[in-house]
Amino acid sequence: MVIIVNSSSEEKFNELIDWIKGQNLQPHIVRGDFSTIVGLVGDTSRVDIEQIRSFDIVRDVRRVEEPYKQANRKFHPKDTIVRINDNVSIGGPNNFTFMAGPCSVETEEQIIGIARSVKAAGAQILRGGAFKPRTSPYSFQGLGADGIKLLLEAKKETGLPIVTELMNINHLPLFEDVDIIQIGARNMQNFDLLKEVGKTNKPILLKRGLANTIRELLMSAEYIMSSGNENVILCERGIRTFETATRNTLDLSSVPVLHECTHLPVIVDPSHATGKSRLVRPMSMAAAACGANGLIIEVHNDPPHALCDGAQSLRPEQFAEVAKSVRLICAATREANAGLESPIA
Amino acid sequence: MVIIVNSSSEEKFNELIDWIKGQNLQPHIVRGDFSTIVGLVGDTSRVDIEQIRSFDIVRDVRRVEEPYKQANRKFHPKDTIVRINDNVSIGGPNNFTFMAGPCSVETEEQIIGIARSVKAAGAQILRGGAFKPRTSPYSFQGLGADGIKLLLEAKKETGLPIVTELMNINHLPLFEDVDIIQIGARNMQNFDLLKEVGKTNKPILLKRGLANTIRELLMSAEYIMSSGNENVILCERGIRTFETATRNTLDLSSVPVLHECTHLPVIVDPSHATGKSRLVRPMSMAAAACGANGLIIEVHNDPPHALCDGAQSLRPEQFAEVAKSVRLICAATREANAGLESPIA
Amino acid sequence: MVIIVNSSSEEKFNELIDWIKGQNLQPHIVRGDFSTIVGLVGDTSRVDIEQIRSFDIVRDVRRVEEPYKQANRKFHPKDTIVRINDNVSIGGPNNFTFMAGPCSVETEEQIIGIARSVKAAGAQILRGGAFKPRTSPYSFQGLGADGIKLLLEAKKETGLPIVTELMNINHLPLFEDVDIIQIGARNMQNFDLLKEVGKTNKPILLKRGLANTIRELLMSAEYIMSSGNENVILCERGIRTFETATRNTLDLSSVPVLHECTHLPVIVDPSHATGKSRLVRPMSMAAAACGANGLIIEVHNDPPHALCDGAQSLRPEQFAEVAKSVRLICAATREANAGLESPIA
Amino acid sequence: MVIIVNSSSEEKFNELIDWIKGQNLQPHIVRGDFSTIVGLVGDTSRVDIEQIRSFDIVRDVRRVEEPYKQANRKFHPKDTIVRINDNVSIGGPNNFTFMAGPCSVETEEQIIGIARSVKAAGAQILRGGAFKPRTSPYSFQGLGADGIKLLLEAKKETGLPIVTELMNINHLPLFEDVDIIQIGARNMQNFDLLKEVGKTNKPILLKRGLANTIRELLMSAEYIMSSGNENVILCERGIRTFETATRNTLDLSSVPVLHECTHLPVIVDPSHATGKSRLVRPMSMAAAACGANGLIIEVHNDPPHALCDGAQSLRPEQFAEVAKSVRLICAATREANAGLESPIA
Repeated sequence: MVIIVNSSSEEKFNELIDWIKGQNLQPHIVRGDFSTIVGLVGDTSRVDIEQIRSFDIVRDVRRVEEPYKQANRKFHPKDTIVRINDNVSIGGPNNFTFMAGPCSVETEEQIIGIARSVKAAGAQILRGGAFKPRTSPYSFQGLGADGIKLLLEAKKETGLPIVTELMNINHLPLFEDVDIIQIGARNMQNFDLLKEVGKTNKPILLKRGLANTIRELLMSAEYIMSSGNENVILCERGIRTFETATRNTLDLSSVPVLHECTHLPVIVDPSHATGKSRLVRPMSMAAAACGANGLIIEVHNDPPHALCDGAQSLRPEQFAEVAKSVRLICAATREANAGLESPIA
Repeated sequence: MVIIVNSSSEEKFNELIDWIKGQNLQPHIVRGDFSTIVGLVGDTSRVDIEQIRSFDIVRDVRRVEEPYKQANRKFHPKDTIVRINDNVSIGGPNNFTFMAGPCSVETEEQIIGIARSVKAAGAQILRGGAFKPRTSPYSFQGLGADGIKLLLEAKKETGLPIVTELMNINHLPLFEDVDIIQIGARNMQNFDLLKEVGKTNKPILLKRGLANTIRELLMSAEYIMSSGNENVILCERGIRTFETATRNTLDLSSVPVLHECTHLPVIVDPSHATGKSRLVRPMSMAAAACGANGLIIEVHNDPPHALCDGAQSLRPEQFAEVAKSVRLICAATREANAGLESPIA
Repeated sequence: MVIIVNSSSEEKFNELIDWIKGQNLQPHIVRGDFSTIVGLVGDTSRVDIEQIRSFDIVRDVRRVEEPYKQANRKFHPKDTIVRINDNVSIGGPNNFTFMAGPCSVETEEQIIGIARSVKAAGAQILRGGAFKPRTSPYSFQGLGADGIKLLLEAKKETGLPIVTELMNINHLPLFEDVDIIQIGARNMQNFDLLKEVGKTNKPILLKRGLANTIRELLMSAEYIMSSGNENVILCERGIRTFETATRNTLDLSSVPVLHECTHLPVIVDPSHATGKSRLVRPMSMAAAACGANGLIIEVHNDPPHALCDGAQSLRPEQFAEVAKSVRLICAATREANAGLESPIA
Repeated sequence: MVIIVNSSSEEKFNELIDWIKGQNLQPHIVRGDFSTIVGLVGDTSRVDIEQIRSFDIVRDVRRVEEPYKQANRKFHPKDTIVRINDNVSIGGPNNFTFMAGPCSVETEEQIIGIARSVKAAGAQILRGGAFKPRTSPYSFQGLGADGIKLLLEAKKETGLPIVTELMNINHLPLFEDVDIIQIGARNMQNFDLLKEVGKTNKPILLKRGLANTIRELLMSAEYIMSSGNENVILCERGIRTFETATRNTLDLSSVPVLHECTHLPVIVDPSHATGKSRLVRPMSMAAAACGANGLIIEVHNDPPHALCDGAQSLRPEQFAEVAKSVRLICAATREANAGLESPIA
């Protein structure tokens, strides 16, 4: 940790130094004309940066080491591979996972029909919303517990494992047979929810919040992991910027940045990021080319009659086309990366 | 509602028009060379804009009326005044409310001491965190239920009503004697939590999310109100931008914008917005000058030893200075607004 | 154009309608309870949206047609291919262009050495800065006219056409033998400069500004084109967001969005966007996969001793590796796109 | 300056240390398990941070001292007061300056009429655009040289000094009798233009760019000052964010932040920041309350017929109301600040 201090009052400086020593840390002091640099070396992960900032004379504080430990590649160099069932695992250089399905589960025919067609197109996991976070209280809020039942029907019919969003701690019992629990972007910093899913041993798909940094995403993963659950899958789904041509701005650079920082798998959601079905194919291909471990894509048999987010949904035959294109890119990417020490140049 | 359609396929256009009529809405069609405009007039608040977007030929859809009703000033022109107790009410041109207290409740002496000093300086409400949302699982998470007990002690000692944050539906019983429930920025779109506090009759202080628009803030207020609770107080606390000189960017324009759109009171939090104690005074004065109904300010007796957010906390004597300055601005603002039809020019 | 009007004063409404008719436009009126929709059909590209907004009763105005014409794919469906010399053309499905070279031209040996090595690795165009826009007046500002001379030396030695930035109208005569004039991100809305390069017939590489929308980029291209120069190449180079892990956020979705909106070629600059050399390879591959027409990449023989932006520069052998990987992705992308009506799903 | 280095290769570390010593700087080294901190003390303002970043092993670099010198309050503690003429000075605690006038100069009657009415309402300076930066080449571009002549007519008639925007180095001779040269937001980093106006001795009104940080604004001021012109007035005019309720987000916190960092005066432009005339009054009052040295406000006699930006223009009688309200706030602010060591708490 590095602390930058105004070279003003010797008394206040000594107060700070005493406080640091009280935390069992050793300060190293470099004095300049206007500023003094205090370097702290050692385990500072439990030091609260805000407390240091509250000393008047402190101008800036900066961590040297990352504040996440269990998610940190430095301490776990090998890629985490999250095992879903005997056939499906997520992460590592040899898996590329397609998750596909409708924004909302609507009826038994709908979800089973879509499940069959995305399976035929190569999807390994079925997604579908039962509990839906909607900006407006007047919008369709999802089928809830009934939606989970329909997803489980579709799982039984097709053998596809399922991923669906949990919004409320008290709904956890309903997720008993769900294969992957999704924590949505709006709940990325719902810390009580993170702690609770951290106590299960289910794979967790953790989506990046709309205005959250990559570091904050990792700190939220750390909440889950430090509660005991290491099966975390990260998901980039676009951030908020001033650009209005797309719903959000898909931050694909986060994929290689995350691969450097963490051993956890990284999935990309081009449907929510762009909000436009016709951008899903090129952005899926781009995601595969920069090292994503998989994609989560909205597919609906009848987008204009979808109960939510139809504008970004592909029809099953379009999804099949996307999957085919992405597989070509995955093969080329593997060939390009072969022999490199790390896929990051 | 206005729908902009590519003038391409007559068949697809008719499909859209049929769908619209199926929703009991009357389309008005204006044809151009490349585009057709379809105007929908009537109650479109329950129409899901996403469903319209999912028709291939639709290029854009835009609401003409706001999607919020209960929070909308158009339907409730008079300012809502939220009554806290016999002495304290929030909202309207004649009240200006100071909420002050520490980021975290730490000890009985601390919270009672601060409560006394902020009361002496003119605060009408005591704030203090018991359950704390922290980015890192390794940071102090608040005293929890014990923190609430200490706040109630301070309330008993000083008579000040208290405001504290609720993060978890299951903690609601602990908030029985809390006067105002705060919903924090990170939970602004935790819709299950909003619905739950909507079922109580307690005043709710709803903070704007870090990357949420003013309209989304109003939709979250609508969640609470449509669940039955009209005692909502909005809070601007800074949004995320590229600027790094301050922790967030305090969006003071949101104050007059909100006063136009809604009848609910608007409070400003300069402490979290700026993250720097020395910016709290000028930004508090600015908030008062543009029409805020009050301020929520962090005050700590010993900022460097605060267990969180010390850098943005004022010492009690500094808070007294801020309150004095703000009262001068409030008086000038009232004088300036006197005789105007509306305080917005 | 759609105008949304508060249904308040009949007199003010008639004033607006008269103004519209005075512009030779025909208003179509759809009346609702609180609002009235006025649709304008016809050539509204010269109507100033701001003038309409200045009528008190107007709540919102929205263009139905894009305000750019010469850059608009609607009017020019075929891809523009910008011819640089007998061997090099930019744009269209069959060209993929590598531009590479140092941030700054430093010495004759440096620029000729880099030119040779990037040519050997497959670059078709040499980039190099002579006039450098630097945030600080105390940073190295480029060799200026001498830098242009050295670039021309390197062109003579290697046959590579050159691209370099113009910052000042009065320097235009120095660019006589430059093959492509770059307009940098900071000058994207330096309209006098745009008009001036619009009067030449040189290819212009127009970089997107740090906080400019895709539409604004197209309007800046329109400035150049409407001045007479149709040889415009667009460049995505990252936008400003709250994320700090990368220098800017590379907005790759802009690539397919631009291909929909315009016929002009789109180049991606992963070096400036990410600011980190080790992210250049994955982001270059991603750019190729989502349809970029080429890349502009910083290459320096000795990054730590580069006079600017060394952190984002590749060494020549790293660039060769990137180029090889990108070619694999380009081949896969072409295979994936073959037979599709449009590469956007 | 603080450099954070990965503790990996001793050889690479020594290379870095040698390079530092070659710059005549003394490195202070603090070693940790994974990282080493290198502190550099002394005059590092001419060290290029990018060059240090380009060493592979460097993870982060951070300046301890600000990179601006002439604009820095640390070296010039006293407020700069820019003298416009015998009657008007800008800056310092005792002046508050109103600049007002139309977005564009249109006709002699218009500009003289507005000049008279804003003078009567208390404006000390007349603003008006002659050369207009417009996003679209098809929008009105201003009257150019003729606009300057009309402004000079209005100056002669009313005695008001004038401020107008310069977009092109070659137009400088036309600005001979202009009192204050405005550098617009889009040209804040047009460094050649900054250097050129730095060679004049005219007061320069430098507007913050839409996506520029406070530090970058100061570096642009430094360009002007280091070229020899110390008469720089800074202007906050809103930054780009995701919020769409206002045209930009007025960053009022920048006012006290700038007062801390620099001795230069700070003016606020609520018209461009909000884009809505009815928000001008509250935001002007807020600007005065947080310490702005003045305001620049758009006023037009007939907003709906203004040739640009009518939506944000006040009518003269509305401006008079704003000025009156602001004067009340200024008086209250002065009273509040009296006796304080610094107006920042």
